Amino acid sequence: MAKEITSREQDYSQWYNDVVLKSGLADYTAVRGCMVIKPYGFALWENMRDVLDKAFKDTGHQNAYFPLFVPKSLFEAEEKNAQGFAKECAVVTHYRLKSDPLNKGKLMVDPDAKLEEELVVRPTSEAIIWNTYKGWIQSYRDLPLLINQWANVVRWEMRTRLFLRTAEFLWQEGHTAHATAQEAIDETKLILDIYADFVENYMALPVVKGLKSPNERFAGAEDTYCIEALMQDGKALQAGTSHFLGQNFAKAFDVKFSDKNNKLEYVWATSWGVSTRLVGALVMAHSDDEGLILPPKIAPLQVVIVPIFKGEEQLAIISEKVDAIVKELKALGISVKYDKSENNRPGWKFAEYEMKGVPVRMAVGARDLENNLVEIARRDTKEKTSVAIDGIAGYIKNLLDEIQMNIYNRAKKYRDEHITKVDNWDDFISTLDNKAGFVSAHWDGTAETEEKIKELSKATIRCIPLNNEMEDGTCILTGNASTQRVLFARAY
Amino acid sequence: MAKEITSREQDYSQWYNDVVLKSGLADYTAVRGCMVIKPYGFALWENMRDVLDKAFKDTGHQNAYFPLFVPKSLFEAEEKNAQGFAKECAVVTHYRLKSDPLNKGKLMVDPDAKLEEELVVRPTSEAIIWNTYKGWIQSYRDLPLLINQWANVVRWEMRTRLFLRTAEFLWQEGHTAHATAQEAIDETKLILDIYADFVENYMALPVVKGLKSPNERFAGAEDTYCIEALMQDGKALQAGTSHFLGQNFAKAFDVKFSDKNNKLEYVWATSWGVSTRLVGALVMAHSDDEGLILPPKIAPLQVVIVPIFKGEEQLAIISEKVDAIVKELKALGISVKYDKSENNRPGWKFAEYEMKGVPVRMAVGARDLENNLVEIARRDTKEKTSVAIDGIAGYIKNLLDEIQMNIYNRAKKYRDEHITKVDNWDDFISTLDNKAGFVSAHWDGTAETEEKIKELSKATIRCIPLNNEMEDGTCILTGNASTQRVLFARAY
Repeated sequence: MAKEITSREQDYSQWYNDVVLKSGLADYTAVRGCMVIKPYGFALWENMRDVLDKAFKDTGHQNAYFPLFVPKSLFEAEEKNAQGFAKECAVVTHYRLKSDPLNKGKLMVDPDAKLEEELVVRPTSEAIIWNTYKGWIQSYRDLPLLINQWANVVRWEMRTRLFLRTAEFLWQEGHTAHATAQEAIDETKLILDIYADFVENYMALPVVKGLKSPNERFAGAEDTYCIEALMQDGKALQAGTSHFLGQNFAKAFDVKFSDKNNKLEYVWATSWGVSTRLVGALVMAHSDDEGLILPPKIAPLQVVIVPIFKGEEQLAIISEKVDAIVKELKALGISVKYDKSENNRPGWKFAEYEMKGVPVRMAVGARDLENNLVEIARRDTKEKTSVAIDGIAGYIKNLLDEIQMNIYNRAKKYRDEHITKVDNWDDFISTLDNKAGFVSAHWDGTAETEEKIKELSKATIRCIPLNNEMEDGTCILTGNASTQRVLFARAY
Repeated sequence: MAKEITSREQDYSQWYNDVVLKSGLADYTAVRGCMVIKPYGFALWENMRDVLDKAFKDTGHQNAYFPLFVPKSLFEAEEKNAQGFAKECAVVTHYRLKSDPLNKGKLMVDPDAKLEEELVVRPTSEAIIWNTYKGWIQSYRDLPLLINQWANVVRWEMRTRLFLRTAEFLWQEGHTAHATAQEAIDETKLILDIYADFVENYMALPVVKGLKSPNERFAGAEDTYCIEALMQDGKALQAGTSHFLGQNFAKAFDVKFSDKNNKLEYVWATSWGVSTRLVGALVMAHSDDEGLILPPKIAPLQVVIVPIFKGEEQLAIISEKVDAIVKELKALGISVKYDKSENNRPGWKFAEYEMKGVPVRMAVGARDLENNLVEIARRDTKEKTSVAIDGIAGYIKNLLDEIQMNIYNRAKKYRDEHITKVDNWDDFISTLDNKAGFVSAHWDGTAETEEKIKELSKATIRCIPLNNEMEDGTCILTGNASTQRVLFARAY
């Protein structure tokens, strides 16, 4: 092996860090809680971003860009939102540095350059955006306003993890304005469907769509819809949220429109986002002890070709054949790299591209070539097959589809086997401790009970699944009456 | 006219603001010096970004993402760079807000959450990136390292202008590392060529490629290459810069590599960037008193079709024909909008799409249709022509190319007419005052003279053109000997 990584069994958390670092997705930096997204990780994020961006545009959304900074007075206007984020805000207080008279060559914050009003580095942009929408919305003709932005945000987290929880992260945040509550709710659900479709069909990761309980709602929302996924250690991960904001922000920023009868009404709002956290989910859900496993649809590189040769002459013969194959693959829209570098041996390359999760590896040797064969290895199952060169591009195209499906099915099987119905507290705890995954249980619907369960078990309500079956039962903690099960889990 | 704008003659500066605001490119916000890039402006920026991004990738560069924040101790490591930007740095000093005990419902900066080390919001990323490269570069095998990032940066400007000078702006910044000085210089020039090609062939804006004089160099660079464009008021605008950084950052951050002979050497560096400022240049260079004029190659919308009709029946007949045309245009990769909304009259729509700079407008009336004709209006010349529907898509495709070329030629003619050779101080001043544009004049090569000329004339050396003719002469200010002319101008 080129680079050793900790096994999942030994230390799941360390395994995750090893995979992220050694596959070249990201790196630590000198800035507390902030990471570098390295080229390989960024190429992956770009692929994910492009799919989502197209889905947003196809449904009538437009991109825009709003300021990074939110003046404190705007930030605090919607009180619940402000309270929810106040504890994790980076705050700009000064706008100049100057030479430090006591330390030659060093700088200090210039005390004469204190801002009159502090600027919050956006943890989310509802405040600055709704303050702007006030100037853009007068009439029902201005609605709906369907805007998205791709941006960086900052939330000062105490305990950080690469991709999963970083002080600065990249995301998209949609902010829409509507004439009626129903339109806004429909938008919220439309986006939830886009998110679910993306995570399932591109990231190959099955999700449960649901509603958050009041305790877990976005600060300032009336309802938070979410998609929840399961990682290989049985912990849940919130993969995206879509919020129905009611008229809370319209009221906080006084955004009204005149309807068709010339009556002034407050505007209805939604906001929704997914972030680079999804990259972390992708790693945790599919990868193994040899490194990343990436779904072909979003992998930065789908096929790598490694020549097995002795001497320039053999390499030339192989390369001629490979160049033709590369051409065929590219014509089918498949991304491919022919790695004929002589710095490293084939074995090293095999391990390296396994680490990077390249879905298909083709090894081309001089002897195989005489028989018109190449060796195909798939990353997801590690199976190797000798395949005829004739029709190889079509074969690989199908194989990529099969790998995509297999990765999804494997994750779905694991997820489905890890939704456990329990009906009492002891089973609840022992399931969490021994099996993990989602635990489907009755809850009496109160915030107090939810809080208490969290305190006792470290499990939270991940969601109330949409289209949940109604079923009479009793709360696992209080024994009080309940009408439906909800999904609990320990979560990232 | 739907919306009045100030004419260029009346007030060029106000004209610019009017065009930007009323065409829907951008808007002011509540945050000092920061703007919103509105959907139409952002779509334009996305088109520009995509062309550049492809050019970078085609030349072997990869995207990555580095932190927004730079710890003060890193920021100050490369002294010249730090001194150059210190006066315009937004500084994060605290990481938490809390409820203000004296103001119910309000927040205050929590004095207990003061950072041990202040964080500078990046005005440019050399420091954080070179501190990271230290961990990535050990051997010549790790070089060259060719990385770009698309990001927001903050420079606290006192006087701001939409797009041209904002406290926060969007840009790309490339940061490359090389084994030799020559490789780094070649990279600097390669990027300059990419910039020039983009600005000339996509933005339809001719540029002069050149070297900055020492006074105008990027802080921390050994050499700054630039492209300079001319606006319609005769002022110059720096459209992009590409810096050869020597070993300055490698030395400041101790980044060494072992060469093929196992000898440790400092790494050679470049950095380069263009920003949303280019959108401002685009507006200023081409637009007129009716609004934007956009080059077809980057216009968010290339063709708009407006029906002229009375009643549903006529509209239905027109729409059937138009739908077919729309299909043909889209098949040719042309972006088109059929605006059959009944909220506004055709005249209002004409003015609105003129304001937005849509290159081609097609008006389709019932009577014209009987003769199988439509009316085509081009935005650049405002010419209108009746054109047969048969083959209309091909006609428009050619017309878009012609418009692209015409806009470029017009700007080039203006630019070429506004490069004036002068040989003495009086002519220098009177050219700047009466004709403006670039003034080609001898300068004695000293920083003192450059400074003095700037003080007396408000003109700066825009660049020493590449491939400049050598020519003996005397400095316009000092009369000292000079070997070549340089380009002066008053500039944005």
